[in-house]
Order: sequence, then structure tokens, then C-alpha cells
Amino acid sequence: MTPRKATASEEALLRIFTVPEAPDSTLSVIEQNISQNLMGFLQESVVAVEKPLSEVELDFQQYHIPASPQFVSDYADNMMKTLVAHSVHTSAPSFIGHMTSALPYFVLPLSKMMVGLNQNLVKIETSKAFTPLERQVLGMMHHLVYSQDETFYQSWMHSANVSLGAFCSGGTVANITALWTARNQLLKADGDFKGVAKQGLIKGLRHYGYDDLAILVSERGHYSLAKTADLLGVGRENIIPVPTSNDNKVDVAQMRDIAAKLAQDNIKVMAIVGVAGTTETGNIDPLNELADLAAELNCHFHVDAAWGGASLLSNKYRHLLAGIERADSVTIDAHKQMYVPMGAGMVLFKDPTFANAIKHHAEYILRQGSKDLGSQTLEGSRPGMAMLVHACLKVIGRDGYEILINNSLEKARYFADLIIEEADFELVSQPELCLLTYRYVPRSVQIAMAKARELGDIETLSKFNQLLDGLTKFVQKTQREQGTSFVSRTRINPENHQLMNIKAVVFRVVLANPLTTHEILQQVLAEQAQIASSDTRFLPKLLEMTQH
Amino acid sequence: MTPRKATASEEALLRIFTVPEAPDSTLSVIEQNISQNLMGFLQESVVAVEKPLSEVELDFQQYHIPASPQFVSDYADNMMKTLVAHSVHTSAPSFIGHMTSALPYFVLPLSKMMVGLNQNLVKIETSKAFTPLERQVLGMMHHLVYSQDETFYQSWMHSANVSLGAFCSGGTVANITALWTARNQLLKADGDFKGVAKQGLIKGLRHYGYDDLAILVSERGHYSLAKTADLLGVGRENIIPVPTSNDNKVDVAQMRDIAAKLAQDNIKVMAIVGVAGTTETGNIDPLNELADLAAELNCHFHVDAAWGGASLLSNKYRHLLAGIERADSVTIDAHKQMYVPMGAGMVLFKDPTFANAIKHHAEYILRQGSKDLGSQTLEGSRPGMAMLVHACLKVIGRDGYEILINNSLEKARYFADLIIEEADFELVSQPELCLLTYRYVPRSVQIAMAKARELGDIETLSKFNQLLDGLTKFVQKTQREQGTSFVSRTRINPENHQLMNIKAVVFRVVLANPLTTHEILQQVLAEQAQIASSDTRFLPKLLEMTQH
Repeated sequence: MTPRKATASEEALLRIFTVPEAPDSTLSVIEQNISQNLMGFLQESVVAVEKPLSEVELDFQQYHIPASPQFVSDYADNMMKTLVAHSVHTSAPSFIGHMTSALPYFVLPLSKMMVGLNQNLVKIETSKAFTPLERQVLGMMHHLVYSQDETFYQSWMHSANVSLGAFCSGGTVANITALWTARNQLLKADGDFKGVAKQGLIKGLRHYGYDDLAILVSERGHYSLAKTADLLGVGRENIIPVPTSNDNKVDVAQMRDIAAKLAQDNIKVMAIVGVAGTTETGNIDPLNELADLAAELNCHFHVDAAWGGASLLSNKYRHLLAGIERADSVTIDAHKQMYVPMGAGMVLFKDPTFANAIKHHAEYILRQGSKDLGSQTLEGSRPGMAMLVHACLKVIGRDGYEILINNSLEKARYFADLIIEEADFELVSQPELCLLTYRYVPRSVQIAMAKARELGDIETLSKFNQLLDGLTKFVQKTQREQGTSFVSRTRINPENHQLMNIKAVVFRVVLANPLTTHEILQQVLAEQAQIASSDTRFLPKLLEMTQH
Repeated sequence: MTPRKATASEEALLRIFTVPEAPDSTLSVIEQNISQNLMGFLQESVVAVEKPLSEVELDFQQYHIPASPQFVSDYADNMMKTLVAHSVHTSAPSFIGHMTSALPYFVLPLSKMMVGLNQNLVKIETSKAFTPLERQVLGMMHHLVYSQDETFYQSWMHSANVSLGAFCSGGTVANITALWTARNQLLKADGDFKGVAKQGLIKGLRHYGYDDLAILVSERGHYSLAKTADLLGVGRENIIPVPTSNDNKVDVAQMRDIAAKLAQDNIKVMAIVGVAGTTETGNIDPLNELADLAAELNCHFHVDAAWGGASLLSNKYRHLLAGIERADSVTIDAHKQMYVPMGAGMVLFKDPTFANAIKHHAEYILRQGSKDLGSQTLEGSRPGMAMLVHACLKVIGRDGYEILINNSLEKARYFADLIIEEADFELVSQPELCLLTYRYVPRSVQIAMAKARELGDIETLSKFNQLLDGLTKFVQKTQREQGTSFVSRTRINPENHQLMNIKAVVFRVVLANPLTTHEILQQVLAEQAQIASSDTRFLPKLLEMTQH
């Protein structure tokens, strides 16, 4: 057979695969700016003042895939104006409302290498050395949590039949993987029953004689846990939110009581989940007490340390997570406090054989006995993101992380002190790690509210809180729109739990960006005070109420 | 409060966040090589001859996170030797065993931009313009499948309360999302029952009076579907593999019979899944017939077009997927035949309100009425990968994809003809898209096997197939180890289904890489013939058998 010659348009098209971007092309120039001065690039390219989303959407209306190819330079030009200009400067030192932070420069060229190599970690055949690299990352993180001995890691880190954890796109998939495995371990094959993985939940419950399953977690648990319960067929109502005490830590005594009641109803507690760094307040559940309870209940103990787990890298503060080494599984996100770009979560298993409960095979990959990572992951095809975690662990090292984590925690303590010192601000939750909540409450309102608390005057307190909600929202939105700085907001109980059970709006900050200075924190507060004092809807009413 | 001064080691550490890689640093030089000559870089950096995995693992043994930071240049040097050298050259034109391909150059700088921007698509607050961009990508892909009118996309593409699909890390998560939604729609809230999402599977089945659920799919369905059934609590045994005919398409009559039997047992068919491009043979199920059956059974119709869906971009060949527009949900991976880097899958929903069955909210994000994408995705935090799909759709365009897809399909037909022409090769499955399977069978063995078939001599055929399995495996492994070219292998029935039901090992190739030439295909066959003729274990026995 004689091969046919390529046509002119085919030749032209092939050039995008064979001819690199010219060094002076629009896209190359953009790329150089990013390489040489990412902060400056973002500062200049992302517009400060917010454009309403409805206007941004106008640039993304076309629903036909365009017929004609567009020049890369035209596309890049266009994206700078429509996309980059209206993206979010997540790494700005004054944007302290997210869990994203500035990134180390070296991850940029490494990301490009990762994309250029385009490995698929589902199997050895398409990833080769990336597979042992990912296993090593899981091994290092496992050691960080569980500190097993040399023999343990030599036996299991690269073993075909087990896994020390699973690399995931993020903490949600990590939590799902952990609880999926826990469900399958609980309702495992037994006698005639071939296991829930094969035969499903109905037959599993019938075989083991349970009426239903439940998962217990703090009311501050991440919403991904409810999503997990839904997905696994357990149901969102069967993930029981357990009240927290005033310090936002789960009340283990109440959890024990709830478990006892469920047992009376023949509902098996499938897992209890400890939160190590709640998303809203950054607090850590009493993990040792939870481990004790899990042992009593003979159930799985999962710790969701998606955000807080990185604090284990600080020798000074890792004691805050004491008991995490007793968890059967632990979720940690590298893309949060480990300074890795978005898309790097992990779940770690204490027992290397644990994930066998979700093991699967196919004819063409994941064959029995292979070391293909995909046989024990929820995801299938996956990129080589583990490389970026590996790079951060090696280039930053324990000593580097010690400084970064400690500084974050100490910066949060500094900010908390600053808030306490400011007459018109009120600290709502103390930073245990580097996350805290607070709100703007004029001094006179603070005094009036304290009096109402003393009198147990719930009605007045409610009114104050309602007005404060409006004020806090106004300040948060205005600050975001002004574009100089950004704090997020959430709703938690700012009052003593014994006194009243309400949810009020508070500012929420996460201080993981190493470039955030004390001066910036002072400015954030000053800006908020200034915005608040300009408010004409809620502030006058609040001040009027103090007159009564 | 007076801010404290940074220490010297803090200052040093901060430099990785503030000082770009010097242009002459090791990592910068590597990056320039990648930018200027990716193919050359991979050719030079990835060693051709395979090193055993056990040896590669020796470089990834350390399980302690190192205490001291490592210089970026040292790290980069080391990774070039240990990681990159032993990664897989997935974009090589002669590596035709994967679904990965060469990538267009422009995705490299764009990936870096994506990482530098580090957006989190879970919510508007951390992604802003990336959210409408992702919705637009979903809109374009929705239009590619469903071709709704202008009013439809104007009403729904950017609507807060609905979604035209979900962007996922890959096809597995896309399939899970589709079937999760289908299960929740089937067992939705009704009267006292609050829905399976809230109350779980047990109560859902009890309320609707089903004994169990089932999913019907071709025996060629992707293994992620069984994983989905496990995860959802349906159970792997309840995803019923339906036999295929000789052309590897599902036998719809048999599927109908199975559904009838399940109905007798009070097992509700939750969904039927059509495969549009099976992973092993690349065939497309009769989608219109499946749509008819789904209507009869009043069940969800999902099409797994993870790999084949990109063929819709070809006006010449999209008729092969006729009926896909009748599916309730469709999975398409952009990182397969759409030339996007790893990590870009999508599920599309015919009905924009469909995904409301998995909708979820939280206090601090995904608030009611928000346009946060995270309220209808399985994953939580996610990177801005949609940008790379957007770029490919715009820069390659329909006209570009038309050429790329048509060339792939025609290259597969060319290769099939080549195999048929070669006396000692046997085409096992015809390419319907750009995937085909074949094996090396010496002419004399082909003749002997044809005779055995005529006589219905199953025993002889089995013996031949067994020996051929050994030979095929030997050839595939040797070729991979030699490092010049790579085909994958799988196990399918190479015989007439009526005659015998066996599984034999076959070569499997995917011809999506635009840089794969006809000459390369000729070389691949020549190399295989040469390796096969050098075999001393199976070939002599095969030839000996022909003497009887």
C-alpha cells in the first residue's frame, strides 16, 4: 500500500504539534512574564475592581464550537482580556479569605514538564517511574502521619498487593475513597455473602442484620462528607452532625450518646470522622477521644485533615493533631497548606491491606499482581501531580515547612491579638491553626450585647446579631469589590452555646500565604473599619439600639 | 503591636516564593528545551531501553521527608535521571498502544498560565471568569452532542439553578456522576420519602418497592462502570454484562431479555449504558436501539463516549454515533481524542435540571442561588483545566478537528488493510473508529485454524489459541522493552461467538496521534514479525501443530 501525501491544510494543522511557539509570539511573551515575575504579571493582568459576573458572562456566550481555527496569538490576546483579567488573584498576600496561597516559583516549570510528559498514572504502562514516585510520596506522607518503622515501608511502599494510600484530585475524592473503603470493609464477604462491593448495600445490610448505616461527625464537618454519604447510598440524613462545644470541637460525650441510640435502633455506625482543621473555624477535634470511641464502637475512624494535616510538618505544633496516628484513614490536601498547585489530594491508610476492599481489575490494565496504581483509586486516568508534591517535599524539606507552618500559625495569633486590641472588632473563634473568624462590632454594641448576655435577653441579642449580619455581609462584599483585599465569610454561632443557638455571619481568614505581612493584616482591618463606618443601613440601627 | 522582623532562614525560604528561577538555572534550561523542542527533549531524556521497575524503585525508597531543603537545580538534575529518563514517552508517534497522543505546543504555556493563576473552580470566589468559561465549554460540548437551539443555551448555559454537565478529572468520575444522578432521580423524593440522597438506598428501595437495582451494559463496558456500581451501593454483580455480537456491539435483544427477567425478580433497571467506543475494540453500540429500549424500560440511558465522543467533531463520521443525542447523559474525555493534557473529563446532561438530584450546599460556599460550579460536581476543589479544552476547541476549531479525527480513522483503516495484506498477521477486530486489534498468526497456522473451524474442532482451536497467547504476549513485551515502538494488548474472543466462547490475547492499537505516519505503521508490523520469528517457545509448537 502506498501512503498518501498530506494535504496543505493537514500540513498546516500538524504545525501546532511540531512547531513550538515562537519566542516572540504573544503566548510566549505572556509565558515569559509569568516565569520572570508571576506576582507582577498577576498584579497587572487581573483587574482590581470587580466586573459583575453577568458582564463577564457576555464574553462566554458562544455555544457553537467555532468552525475556523483561531491563531494562538489571537486566542491568547483574547483570553488575557476576558479570562485572566477577570480571574481571581488567589495568591495575593492581601487575599486572605481562601485556602490557596502564593506558590513557590519552581512549581511553574515543573508543571510544564508534567504536562509535556503527559503521563497517565492509572497504570505502569503509561507512567513507569511516576508510579514508584507516587508510591514514595504516599509513603512519605504515611510516615508523617503514622511513623511506622523501616521494615514497614520496605515491605509495603512498593508492594503490588497493597497501598499506603491513594492520590486523588482533591480532599473530596480522598474522603469518598476513605469512607467507601470503610463501608466495604464493614460489609465484607462472609460465608455465602460475597461482600457489599459485589452484591450491593441491600444484601450487605440483610446479611449482617443491620437496619441501616450511619456516620458520625462534628456539625463542622466538611460538606464533602454529606456528599459521600449520598454517593455511597448511606444517605445524607445518616451522616449525623454532632454538636460542638464553644471551641468548635466535637462533643465526644454527645457523639457517644448518639451512637448508643443508633445501636438501639439497630443502625450500625459505619465510621466516625474527626475533623483536623474545620473549614470554617480551623479547629481540631479531640482525636484521641475519638479514637477511643471508635475502638468502643468497633468502627472505622477517619480523620479529615484536608486542610490541617500539613501542620504535622511542624515539629512545634504537630502535637495539636495528637491522636491522628490512631486513625484508620486520613485525608490531606497538598494543594492547601503544602504550597502545591490545585489538584493534589491524598488519603492515607494505616493498614496497607485496607484498600483491598475497593480493589478492581480489568483485562487490559490493572491485571492481578500488577503495580498499577489505578486498581485502588476512585479515579481512573490521572495526571502526574504527585511529582509536584514530591518536589515540594524535597525542595522545601521538613526544615522549610517548619518555618512556613509555624509562621502561618504565629501570624494568625498575631492577627487575633490585633483584632482583640481593636476596640470595634470582636474575635469570634481563636486560631488553633492559622484560620480564625471575627466580625466588626462597634464598642458600644459590644457593651450593650454583653449586658444582654448577662440578663439572658435572647431577643435583644438576636436583634443585634441580625443587624450585625447585614453589616458583616456589606463589609465583606464591598471589600471584595474594591479589590485591594479579600476575606471570606461564613455563618457560625458567635454566642455561648449554652445561651443561644444561632448562626451569624462572620469574617473568615486563612493565613497560609507566606507573603502576607503584619502590615497587610493591619491594612485589612483598617479598610474594614472604614467600610463599616460608611454603612448607612445597619450601623445607624445598631448604634440606635445601644441607646435603649 | 509591633511586627517582628523575619530571620535569615525565613528570608531565604521566602525567596522560593518571590525570586523566579534564573534563566540559566538547570530547571529553566530544561524548561526551554521543552518549550523549544518537546519531541526532541522527550526523545533525548526518556531512555529507550526499559529498566526493570524493581530497579527504578530503588531511586524512590526514602520514606522520610528529608529534613534539609534541596536546591531546585539539584532536584531537577536528579529528577531528569531518575524520573524523566524512566517515564513513558506517551506522545511518541510509534507508541500506538495508549489513548494518549502528541499534544499541540500551545497547551504547554497555557498550562503554566493555569498553574500560575491557581484558580479553584469549586466556587466563583476563587475562579470568577473561569466559571463562565467552564460553563461555556460544557455548553459547546452539550451542543456538539445534543444540538439544542439558541434559546436553550441562552436560557441555561449560565443559569444558576441548572447545569449542562459537569467537568471532571476524567471519564471515571464522569461515569460515576452520571449514574449517581440517575440513581438519585429514580429514587427521588416522593410523598413521605425524602429521596435516596437524603435517606439512603435501603429506604429508597423500600419506598419504591424494588428488591434491588441493576445496570445493563455490554460485556465490553469500561471497568469504571463496575466501580461505579460498587461505590453507589448497587453492587458489581448488579451491573449485568450483556453479550456482544461478533462485531463487539451489545446484543440489544439479549439486553431486553435480561431486563424482562430482572423485572420478574422485582429488580429495577436503573440505567442502561451504551458504549461509544469500547476501550478494547473501539466499537460503538447500537445507540438508537438502546434509546428505544431505555424508553420501553422507562430508565436512564447513559452513553459512555469517554474515548469515542470526540468523533462527533467529524462531520464525516459523526453518523457512527447516531442516537447519542437521545442519551440522558454522555461522558466524553477531552484528554483522549481531543488533544488536551491528562485530567479533563466531562459528563453532559440532556436535561439541564437533571443534576439537581445531586445538588448540595454549604454555609460558606455553594450558597443557594449561587453559580458556584461545585454545587453539582462530585469533586470539590478543582483546577481550571476547562481552559485547556476551551483553547483546543478555539484554536483547532471544527475544521481542524475534522481533519484530525478523519485522519485518525483513515489511518486505522489503512493499518487494517496493511494487516490483512500481510500473510502472517490476522485482523481480529475491524476499526470502526481509530482502534483495532490483531495478532501475529503465521499463514500456515491460519490455514490450519480455518480448517479446524470448518470441522468445528474446538479442541484444536483452543490449543492454537493458547499457543498464540504466549506468542502475542512475548512479542508485545519484547517490543515494549526494545523501546522503539509500543502496542498494548488485551484479551477478547477472536473466534466466531457461535463457535466458541474464549478469550485470547491480541494486540491493540489506537491511532489518534497525528504524527504517526504510514511508514511507522509498516515498521511496527515489521518489528513484530521479526520478534515473532525469533521466538523459540511458542512458534515452533504452533508450526509443528500445522503438520498434523
